[in-house]
Amino acid sequence: MAGTDKRKADAAKNLPKGPAMVLVVPQLGDNIGAAARAMLNFALTDLRLVAPRDGWPNPRAWKAASGADSLLDNAKVVTTTEEAVGDLDFVLATTARPRDMVKPVYTPEEAVRRMRAHLKAGGNPGFLFGPERTGLTNDDLALADAVVTVPLNPAFSSLNLAQAVLLMAYEWNRAGDETPDEELPMADTRPATKSELLGLFTHLEEELDDTGFLRPEEKRPAMIRNIRNLFQRAAMTEQEVRTFRGIISALTKHAYRRAREELGVKKSGD
Amino acid sequence: MAGTDKRKADAAKNLPKGPAMVLVVPQLGDNIGAAARAMLNFALTDLRLVAPRDGWPNPRAWKAASGADSLLDNAKVVTTTEEAVGDLDFVLATTARPRDMVKPVYTPEEAVRRMRAHLKAGGNPGFLFGPERTGLTNDDLALADAVVTVPLNPAFSSLNLAQAVLLMAYEWNRAGDETPDEELPMADTRPATKSELLGLFTHLEEELDDTGFLRPEEKRPAMIRNIRNLFQRAAMTEQEVRTFRGIISALTKHAYRRAREELGVKKSGD
Repeated sequence: MAGTDKRKADAAKNLPKGPAMVLVVPQLGDNIGAAARAMLNFALTDLRLVAPRDGWPNPRAWKAASGADSLLDNAKVVTTTEEAVGDLDFVLATTARPRDMVKPVYTPEEAVRRMRAHLKAGGNPGFLFGPERTGLTNDDLALADAVVTVPLNPAFSSLNLAQAVLLMAYEWNRAGDETPDEELPMADTRPATKSELLGLFTHLEEELDDTGFLRPEEKRPAMIRNIRNLFQRAAMTEQEVRTFRGIISALTKHAYRRAREELGVKKSGD
Repeated sequence: MAGTDKRKADAAKNLPKGPAMVLVVPQLGDNIGAAARAMLNFALTDLRLVAPRDGWPNPRAWKAASGADSLLDNAKVVTTTEEAVGDLDFVLATTARPRDMVKPVYTPEEAVRRMRAHLKAGGNPGFLFGPERTGLTNDDLALADAVVTVPLNPAFSSLNLAQAVLLMAYEWNRAGDETPDEELPMADTRPATKSELLGLFTHLEEELDDTGFLRPEEKRPAMIRNIRNLFQRAAMTEQEVRTFRGIISALTKHAYRRAREELGVKKSGD
């Protein structure tokens, strides 16, 4: 669809500045493409590649990017990590907890908190990601201000390159995102007012009184409270209240009709 | 490596109970395998498959799982979503914000908060994930208590199936993870004591006094404070203090030696 393609082409425009994502000697074009896709999913666009193993441009990257082409088209491709981070002033290296290096280790959450504060103060932050098999070298780590380590199942802790990029991009976006924790979209309707709900309750309770369901009398108040609580929990819309009153009418009318028919059958059978 | 394989085989054992991950009509074996890998990365093991398109078992899944075989070996494979969720009592459907349905929408963070509370109360929660191209049907959504929507760049919001599983698994683990936001691993050393630092300061300042660097006298106190603050920010270890004192000695001795040599050269040249 032309509309979708146009939208995709525009997806990288007018986004707020975010951290640079530096892939150091990435091996697979598929991973570079998937990383670009993950970045754009979370509104990041500054992709940098240090000496991609299979050369550049690599068509496999474009194939895996699912439309995040503009990031690949504009990727900064250099030959050393030093060149890639030259204009950055706060660099976090994504890696497992280093064993023999004295360097702060942040959770992704804390890393993003610091990066956002840094960016707000006019800084230019970035993440470093190592090659698929070997990860970042100690020389790369020595270029970084700190390390970010994703807490993982210690017995199964290998994270794919594109997944590591995805998680950092997700955290970045999450920290700046203002979506409410919980929403109840209403489409074309609205929450029922209490008087609409009370209309439903009365309707149902009158019908139930007729059937004898709410007996014995001393249990009636508690039974009614239980039923009302159930409907309150459902947080009904105005539309649903009307639907439900329709259901009550349909059930009672149908029962009435069936009873008459059965009586009629019996009568004619007599 | 046998050790690694053994570890991988054990990686799914003795993990705390987490939510079920239900993949509804997944199309690609690669995605099923990548989803299993992502689950085990974050210590989740209850994988359920509803009518995988290419049949089951699918060797491509095992190939993509990078060793998370036990999840695939033990996956519950059924033919309908109803069967897959039958024993669950709190089901969240991962999908874009639904347009014409009145159902609570949670952020991943809020979803996991509620799931953890639910699990703690003895419940049995699970996530639903739709097929790659089409997503969950409205009938699937009607089986869910609520919807989880990952906040994404609105102009580029298609998330790969395995990536959606990864993000939910990551959030699940994050909410229960107790890794401190920031750590400074010390390897075989320890933070320098203030008296060790003061030893370094004094050493450096004496050498600098000799060179005349700390003049004029009225600026000396501020210059010293600036230098000391720089070293305080570096949060040096005991080892680094010793290294740095070695550096100071080396620099001064080298300068002294060079000066003598140059004088010697001049002398002999005279």
